[in-house]
Amino acid sequence: MASTRDALEFPESDKGFLECQLPPKDGSTPRPDMPFTTLTFATSLDSSLALSPGARTVLSGPQSKAMTHYLRSRHDGILIGVGTAVADDPGLNCRIAGVGGYGGENLDSQPRPIVIDPSARWDFSEDSKLFQLCRQGRGRAPWIVTTRQKPSAEKQALLEKYGGKFITLEEIDWSVLFVALRSNGLRSVMIEGGAHVINSLLEPSNMSLIDRVIVTIAPTWLGQGGVVVSPPRRFDTEGKAISAARLKNVKWYPFGEDVVLCGQIRVNDDV
Amino acid sequence: MASTRDALEFPESDKGFLECQLPPKDGSTPRPDMPFTTLTFATSLDSSLALSPGARTVLSGPQSKAMTHYLRSRHDGILIGVGTAVADDPGLNCRIAGVGGYGGENLDSQPRPIVIDPSARWDFSEDSKLFQLCRQGRGRAPWIVTTRQKPSAEKQALLEKYGGKFITLEEIDWSVLFVALRSNGLRSVMIEGGAHVINSLLEPSNMSLIDRVIVTIAPTWLGQGGVVVSPPRRFDTEGKAISAARLKNVKWYPFGEDVVLCGQIRVNDDV
Repeated sequence: MASTRDALEFPESDKGFLECQLPPKDGSTPRPDMPFTTLTFATSLDSSLALSPGARTVLSGPQSKAMTHYLRSRHDGILIGVGTAVADDPGLNCRIAGVGGYGGENLDSQPRPIVIDPSARWDFSEDSKLFQLCRQGRGRAPWIVTTRQKPSAEKQALLEKYGGKFITLEEIDWSVLFVALRSNGLRSVMIEGGAHVINSLLEPSNMSLIDRVIVTIAPTWLGQGGVVVSPPRRFDTEGKAISAARLKNVKWYPFGEDVVLCGQIRVNDDV
Repeated sequence: MASTRDALEFPESDKGFLECQLPPKDGSTPRPDMPFTTLTFATSLDSSLALSPGARTVLSGPQSKAMTHYLRSRHDGILIGVGTAVADDPGLNCRIAGVGGYGGENLDSQPRPIVIDPSARWDFSEDSKLFQLCRQGRGRAPWIVTTRQKPSAEKQALLEKYGGKFITLEEIDWSVLFVALRSNGLRSVMIEGGAHVINSLLEPSNMSLIDRVIVTIAPTWLGQGGVVVSPPRRFDTEGKAISAARLKNVKWYPFGEDVVLCGQIRVNDDV
């Protein structure tokens, strides 16, 4: 039996409130050519993800951490931007007890890491956390989405050795990207950050591509100068500033010291 | 009987969760020489109070608005900075049904507005909302706290005509200020803003003066460039950035579309 070291438990009693927010278990998607998309992240009260890029910032409590890994178990893919890959060297696997590498026998429930890296600048190696987890049978190799820059043959070989691949697009357009991920077999994608990716998806031209938003808020102010989630300013037809993005079907769940906010983004034609 | 036009109702069922956060009804205070202090405000998910200074930004829902007025009915004073007075021309009264001007016969439950205006720059007049409410018997005249600048005789006369006054301090030091308010008879003060006042009170040297924090968060991102609550960055003894301020005894109350966060500021010697 596979090791259960580091495995996390997400209690049945906590799953109830999330179920109606999650991708359908039958694999159906709201749009036939795209995956179900969940935008999820944890911030401070002053909307910071971290004190600075790459700074390990423990914001949310242990319950919220287990929730993140449970959410990962319910999505086919986890998407991050290259900034986060470079700054955090993240594992991007799922540590819920019973999934592959944490008591489970295969990687079926391990999500596919996806790194958006237009210029193929991420300088990964055998030592990168993602590949360490691959060697331990505790996670899948990433798909790296690039555009202009052709990755080196060495990088390509390393990636493919672990079962990952480069996906090359004409440009990083969220709609094109999600279609590409669906055509590569992903029925659901959880977008975890960083701030650049999140703020981009909260822009008017992209927000309709997001099916659910799940934000954990910790009762802490990180202070000025952090890595902030705040979408670009938005103006009405008369040039007056208006709210950048609003949620509908809002639910708040107190969760340990944190609160979890679930909702859908209100698009222009919503009342 | 006095008019009940514009009166707000805050239902009994909603009062329960707030009661343990409020100033004691017997008028006792945690420190003998200072009032009980409540820091309270409403922000967007990206910690903005408003789209820009003075922009009327409807953030929180009607339940939260009624809550604010209920909180005002339970405090002797409401404190704001001069920036907010200038930008918003606020009323700073309490509109809960039954208080003076809203069904009640006297101003006993109307809080005292306090405006921190070190250089006496607030150019109020008979037309200022605060004095309109005074004339209607719907609110009290403000106390204006100044330092360096002597207010004009005209302003002083206008203020005193309505029963307000200037309070002159050597400097704006929060500790000195709160002692002055207590010695002027206030047993509880609710600090409502703006961002400059809030961020100042969340600094290490001032945070221990705050007894309770009550923050309403609306499920909206106002976008970059708003009026942001985020205290100055804080560093540990080795110069490493750390959380600027954290809360303890945290309670979250979903409240309509918003959430209300209540807590106490964790000071250095808290574990």
